[in-house]
Amino acid sequence: MAHVEVGEVVRALRGARDEWRARQKRARELGPREFPSREALAGIVESLKGALFPMRLGPPDLRHENEDFYVGHTLDAALQGLLAQARLELNFSARHAPADAQEEIDALAARAVRDFAEALPGLRRLLDTDVLAAYQGDPAARSVDEVLLCYPGVLAMIHHRLAHKLYALGLPLLARIVAELAHAQTGIDIHPGARIGAGFFIDHGTGVVIGETAVIGQGVRLYQAVTLGAKRFPTDAEGHLQKGLPRHPVVEDEVVIYAGATILGRVTLGKGATIGGNVWVTDDVAPGASVTQASLQKAPGVRA
Amino acid sequence: MAHVEVGEVVRALRGARDEWRARQKRARELGPREFPSREALAGIVESLKGALFPMRLGPPDLRHENEDFYVGHTLDAALQGLLAQARLELNFSARHAPADAQEEIDALAARAVRDFAEALPGLRRLLDTDVLAAYQGDPAARSVDEVLLCYPGVLAMIHHRLAHKLYALGLPLLARIVAELAHAQTGIDIHPGARIGAGFFIDHGTGVVIGETAVIGQGVRLYQAVTLGAKRFPTDAEGHLQKGLPRHPVVEDEVVIYAGATILGRVTLGKGATIGGNVWVTDDVAPGASVTQASLQKAPGVRA
Amino acid sequence: MAHVEVGEVVRALRGARDEWRARQKRARELGPREFPSREALAGIVESLKGALFPMRLGPPDLRHENEDFYVGHTLDAALQGLLAQARLELNFSARHAPADAQEEIDALAARAVRDFAEALPGLRRLLDTDVLAAYQGDPAARSVDEVLLCYPGVLAMIHHRLAHKLYALGLPLLARIVAELAHAQTGIDIHPGARIGAGFFIDHGTGVVIGETAVIGQGVRLYQAVTLGAKRFPTDAEGHLQKGLPRHPVVEDEVVIYAGATILGRVTLGKGATIGGNVWVTDDVAPGASVTQASLQKAPGVRA
Amino acid sequence: MAHVEVGEVVRALRGARDEWRARQKRARELGPREFPSREALAGIVESLKGALFPMRLGPPDLRHENEDFYVGHTLDAALQGLLAQARLELNFSARHAPADAQEEIDALAARAVRDFAEALPGLRRLLDTDVLAAYQGDPAARSVDEVLLCYPGVLAMIHHRLAHKLYALGLPLLARIVAELAHAQTGIDIHPGARIGAGFFIDHGTGVVIGETAVIGQGVRLYQAVTLGAKRFPTDAEGHLQKGLPRHPVVEDEVVIYAGATILGRVTLGKGATIGGNVWVTDDVAPGASVTQASLQKAPGVRA
Amino acid sequence: MAHVEVGEVVRALRGARDEWRARQKRARELGPREFPSREALAGIVESLKGALFPMRLGPPDLRHENEDFYVGHTLDAALQGLLAQARLELNFSARHAPADAQEEIDALAARAVRDFAEALPGLRRLLDTDVLAAYQGDPAARSVDEVLLCYPGVLAMIHHRLAHKLYALGLPLLARIVAELAHAQTGIDIHPGARIGAGFFIDHGTGVVIGETAVIGQGVRLYQAVTLGAKRFPTDAEGHLQKGLPRHPVVEDEVVIYAGATILGRVTLGKGATIGGNVWVTDDVAPGASVTQASLQKAPGVRA
Amino acid sequence: MAHVEVGEVVRALRGARDEWRARQKRARELGPREFPSREALAGIVESLKGALFPMRLGPPDLRHENEDFYVGHTLDAALQGLLAQARLELNFSARHAPADAQEEIDALAARAVRDFAEALPGLRRLLDTDVLAAYQGDPAARSVDEVLLCYPGVLAMIHHRLAHKLYALGLPLLARIVAELAHAQTGIDIHPGARIGAGFFIDHGTGVVIGETAVIGQGVRLYQAVTLGAKRFPTDAEGHLQKGLPRHPVVEDEVVIYAGATILGRVTLGKGATIGGNVWVTDDVAPGASVTQASLQKAPGVRA
Repeated sequence: MAHVEVGEVVRALRGARDEWRARQKRARELGPREFPSREALAGIVESLKGALFPMRLGPPDLRHENEDFYVGHTLDAALQGLLAQARLELNFSARHAPADAQEEIDALAARAVRDFAEALPGLRRLLDTDVLAAYQGDPAARSVDEVLLCYPGVLAMIHHRLAHKLYALGLPLLARIVAELAHAQTGIDIHPGARIGAGFFIDHGTGVVIGETAVIGQGVRLYQAVTLGAKRFPTDAEGHLQKGLPRHPVVEDEVVIYAGATILGRVTLGKGATIGGNVWVTDDVAPGASVTQASLQKAPGVRA
Repeated sequence: MAHVEVGEVVRALRGARDEWRARQKRARELGPREFPSREALAGIVESLKGALFPMRLGPPDLRHENEDFYVGHTLDAALQGLLAQARLELNFSARHAPADAQEEIDALAARAVRDFAEALPGLRRLLDTDVLAAYQGDPAARSVDEVLLCYPGVLAMIHHRLAHKLYALGLPLLARIVAELAHAQTGIDIHPGARIGAGFFIDHGTGVVIGETAVIGQGVRLYQAVTLGAKRFPTDAEGHLQKGLPRHPVVEDEVVIYAGATILGRVTLGKGATIGGNVWVTDDVAPGASVTQASLQKAPGVRA
Repeated sequence: MAHVEVGEVVRALRGARDEWRARQKRARELGPREFPSREALAGIVESLKGALFPMRLGPPDLRHENEDFYVGHTLDAALQGLLAQARLELNFSARHAPADAQEEIDALAARAVRDFAEALPGLRRLLDTDVLAAYQGDPAARSVDEVLLCYPGVLAMIHHRLAHKLYALGLPLLARIVAELAHAQTGIDIHPGARIGAGFFIDHGTGVVIGETAVIGQGVRLYQAVTLGAKRFPTDAEGHLQKGLPRHPVVEDEVVIYAGATILGRVTLGKGATIGGNVWVTDDVAPGASVTQASLQKAPGVRA
Repeated sequence: MAHVEVGEVVRALRGARDEWRARQKRARELGPREFPSREALAGIVESLKGALFPMRLGPPDLRHENEDFYVGHTLDAALQGLLAQARLELNFSARHAPADAQEEIDALAARAVRDFAEALPGLRRLLDTDVLAAYQGDPAARSVDEVLLCYPGVLAMIHHRLAHKLYALGLPLLARIVAELAHAQTGIDIHPGARIGAGFFIDHGTGVVIGETAVIGQGVRLYQAVTLGAKRFPTDAEGHLQKGLPRHPVVEDEVVIYAGATILGRVTLGKGATIGGNVWVTDDVAPGASVTQASLQKAPGVRA
Repeated sequence: MAHVEVGEVVRALRGARDEWRARQKRARELGPREFPSREALAGIVESLKGALFPMRLGPPDLRHENEDFYVGHTLDAALQGLLAQARLELNFSARHAPADAQEEIDALAARAVRDFAEALPGLRRLLDTDVLAAYQGDPAARSVDEVLLCYPGVLAMIHHRLAHKLYALGLPLLARIVAELAHAQTGIDIHPGARIGAGFFIDHGTGVVIGETAVIGQGVRLYQAVTLGAKRFPTDAEGHLQKGLPRHPVVEDEVVIYAGATILGRVTLGKGATIGGNVWVTDDVAPGASVTQASLQKAPGVRA
Repeated sequence: MAHVEVGEVVRALRGARDEWRARQKRARELGPREFPSREALAGIVESLKGALFPMRLGPPDLRHENEDFYVGHTLDAALQGLLAQARLELNFSARHAPADAQEEIDALAARAVRDFAEALPGLRRLLDTDVLAAYQGDPAARSVDEVLLCYPGVLAMIHHRLAHKLYALGLPLLARIVAELAHAQTGIDIHPGARIGAGFFIDHGTGVVIGETAVIGQGVRLYQAVTLGAKRFPTDAEGHLQKGLPRHPVVEDEVVIYAGATILGRVTLGKGATIGGNVWVTDDVAPGASVTQASLQKAPGVRA
């Protein structure tokens, strides 16, 4: 190894960093790293899962009569961790703000974490509907416990419901990290901004993508590789999204979308509609309608 | 943090749990958690991989002449762990059974683990055919060792062959967890019930879904995003599966299915058939036939 | 557990291994395991990420003024680890070579690691263009830091640019392991041999497959489930690739390929072309052309 | 390494074990190991320390208002762990008992753990007196917190008070292990049987030995290398203890014993006595008396 | 376990804590725990050892030419950790100070850590003399490397020289913790306040106690169980030390003290004196004198 | 932290190292660190303990019928680790030897490890006598299992018997590290060179020191703080040992030595002699004699 001049490489790497920072107009004196940590959030989410479902996702030896001790201690630690991460995100967002904004930022972070904590019981109730939907929607499911432990779609929804709350509370970066943790494990990519009603079930799940402004009603069911995306053509030659505009589908209650279907743009899939596998949809679908490969010949704006 | 009333949140979460348990008719006195553990099974599967392929998936410093010591010790620990998990599953399944059934359950668990242990040498031989198929099927593969260490399709098959045995021995929940561990790592979702012949190879793999009653012959090759699923329309408006019925494809020997193809329902792909990429198949395909995007215009029940 | 005859199973497993080794013509006396380790490479890649992006992917408490100490120490350890793995790969490749080749192998390994080290500053600059492309290509991105930490497409490119260098330096197995580590985390499967220009961005990413001889220009953008594969039919009934021949697409600068599109064979997508979602392309596309589902009726060799 | 015949050594070691077991009349078929675990008890004691002193020996981020959640959860886990260890000790003690004694043993273990749990608040109060004694007895001590975190004598007393309770509840082996854990860390060897009053302080501590039947009053202070042992000569040429008889000193309230003093046999050190360094005492010392090197010339039975 | 009322025990423990806090006049609202951490300091000391002796106490794969990278990175992390601990100690000391003292405390902590850092090269030079003294003083020592890795006396001195510096910089609690870490490992108890000259060697070491105001010259050698303590009798019936007064021995250059000797009070052992094993000294010893068991009959104030 | 100039400290520390190396005549180009590792040896000793006493010091779930698998696998790994450490010691010893000595050194290391392995069954038998001696010598001991798990004297003897074998095989540094590991845990300091017969028992143990050339017969019993040291005065004013000469006591069979006794020089304690507590012995003691504080007035060379 005597021939690798590590010192040379270190110098050259510093040169590359300096170039980048100059181009990014980042001051040379950055101070310590101020950014939320994926590892910290992974730990926090694990704790929150345990606090939400203590007898299934908590420690293996938990006893029913002492659940609350576990929930209280775990929650307290998780919320403290979350507060620290929230401060990091808000400080990073406000990195060009005047120095005396710290107090206000701390208050914002504290308020966000308090609101998040108070929302947890409601999130638990919502997640119970998702677990039930998975159990009822998959004849292979033997118990709700199996669903909670094994189904990637349920894992993705636990992350999403937590992430969506963080997103709504003004912590989009924490929300994104929580969502990506589920994406990496399940192959299901739900943007934290998506609004999803009760009783949502994704089967298999790998390759599902749900965009930021998607709105999904109650009792909706999705299979693997379904995309609820933004329509980019024909008018937009570059494919760039306009930020903030509603640009993803509205999916009404009780819709079922089979594997590989692609729904693009601010279209509405009417209540109870069924979208067949691999179908490509860029126009509204009427309530109760069934769109399949076979039906595509006749319907404008719906192609396979 | 003084303003988060953790005690309040703990009480409200308990309320949510009580509601759920009341609705699920779960007695308030549940006793300790009795459910198989994903973490425990992950450890057991790692040990079994080491016992099956000691010089490649065992400890890095293993020496050839002492393989058997490692295999024996690792196997013993893995089988004890599996026995504990098997008891947890069987007890959970029998949670409404009379209290004196414990002895019978223990005997069932012990028998299942013994049968599983005795099946391992056969599974190793089957997996050798899968490794060989991957090596021969991918011109980029440089050695069988590389295939064993690097190919997600091979990892998925190791998990599947173990999971399928557990499934056949009456431990469907353990089987499911073993399968999901591979799904999370590879994006390949094979139901433990699927019957798969020797020399099976999945290339790339992300997004592959193989259903519970699928039957696959020898020497079959699959690419990424292939679905062997159940046909749900046009007749079934709700998309619900009838549990237990054969509802997934039969794929005969030497069939090749290219990326993104979707085969639905209890159809048969005849021996040596080739299914092109992104093709949508809901009818039988004759032995030796080649179905591609181009050929779809003519064949009924086969569409792109 | 008294009834599992572990000794019997150990003997039967040895029998299976002996059969395999006999069939593979592997000598009974193999000596210690000589093969690169996935775990070791995972650690090395983590260190390299830290050395490349110390303030974002390094330790959380790193301070700007002492970056170089961290970079130097981490790099030194990572390169030593890489040297050991490189020796393992080269020794494995040369396992039938005469015993006195060791010195030459060691020199080869040392040279490869030195060249790799010297390439790192250049790779950092390339990766900066990828980060910038992701930031500019996704209106939801709030900062380059978020992109670096959260985007699976960026993670995949860090791994790919390291893996591609290893591949070019004659270490294809190490390269493959580095690529598979990203594949497992992101669902993005890029062969280390693929040549990819600056400013490359993959959005969402799950299910993307890019083949060994693909050539991609600057400023290209891809969405989930895009395949840049080899054309296998109609002429090749078995679907076997000819090794080494250019068989994957050439994608020129500024091309955009939407989700689910499949491009097969040594075709060229001309500069600035746009390929729509789920489109199936097996012929050249002219510069600036836009291929969508709608346009497919007219273009030969391009089908949906 | 090829020349170490591990198999031979394994066989010879088995021979040695078989000899031992034959000599010890241990049946060849021992079943699984049934013995308390030092590691498990170390973890349990750490948890109990946290439950007793949550803000000092609990997790660093504990907040005052949520102490009870931590205490309850930690205690519950520790007591479950202790119950398992208690069963192991009682089963081991009763290893020659009839097989149907298990229920009785389980009841014994449960009762012991319940009594232990109920004794904890009293032990905390006792330990508070020890902490205070250390703080008041050492002018170098700056706060009770420092004493609790830094003083080996306090650590030894936390272990002793827990161990003494276990000993009194019929779990002498668990008690011994708890005591030895402190011995290894502090060099202070207190037999769990010793009865020690409130406000006990050991300074420095290395080399202190306190025997099983020692009785120590309130407010006693000891320095390093003090022995409260059994008198073995002149009458007992072999130096064997008669088991169970009171054979160690009685130390009354407010006694101070300086470093290296040795007190042997069932002698009484009267209230408020002072024993000088390195003094050797084998007879009673009157209340308030001061025994030093200088005074030894005159006192029979007390020598330096 | 159903019969342990954990809730009851939790309540009773809280009662015991409340009593203690009331008696200690600690406000009910303590806020989060603010106290230095033994675990954190253990980690910091390990890092400092590595930074002081990189090739022996640093990472095993360190290469000579890249030592400085390791030293710099490790030092930086250790000093940041130390700064955090220093703040905790100073805040704890000032816990009754007005709230606006924080800035001053932070400045004090920063200055202490800076001074500590700048003292490290000098400490390394001093420790080199200790290592050399051990090597030259023990004929069994084979190399200075062996001495550095194996000798408990050297470990104790590394801790002491660091602790003494912290003590001198106004951080007596951190100093104490660093000293106790060595005490627990070696049985050698050196108060951080003791002033010890170059080339100090303790052989075997168990049971050595050196008090706060002891002053030790150059080239001194000590064996196990030597006490350099405070004289407490005959005049002080309670044995209480007067804080701050010089009360421990002065040991001049080149003195040797054999095992078990006890030197008490502010006496002076003159240059080059030899104190025999188990000897008890409470008066000055002349330079060059040799005090042994045999000589004790004649010398007043020196007894065996 | 901005004010600590870490770079300055790094430079100054390098200066201190350079001085030391210059003075120690160590070449500037040292190459990688070549020295045995305390951590590695700690792991090796743990494995050896498990291999020697599988059902008590092995893994908690070990089953009797599969002991040999565990023993074989553990032994193999431990011996490989030991071989690596032996090479490091021998290379370090031979660091001034010609470069072509490597082959010879490797052969020496291999032979030492083989001889060590073959000695293990004999060591197990010896240790069984020590366990039995402790069980029979302490009336408080309830079972041989308790003795094996709890008694520091037994732990020290396991380490010593392993260390003594390493010492005899020409690996004194490894031996020393193994001995110091026990010293740190137990406060018992036995030089690896000491020759100790069967059935040796040390009670309590803290502060025991046994020198390099001590020879101890069968059935000997020792208590805490006993020293078997070298006589250094009156003739040797400096207290330096002559290396290699027999200079520590010979203790014949069945001798008992009580706490705090100091035996110095090449004296012989005759068979069955009893040495009382705190006694100081520098002359031979006749077989069967009993030396106590009271008897010391008459015996020359024996003082208290």
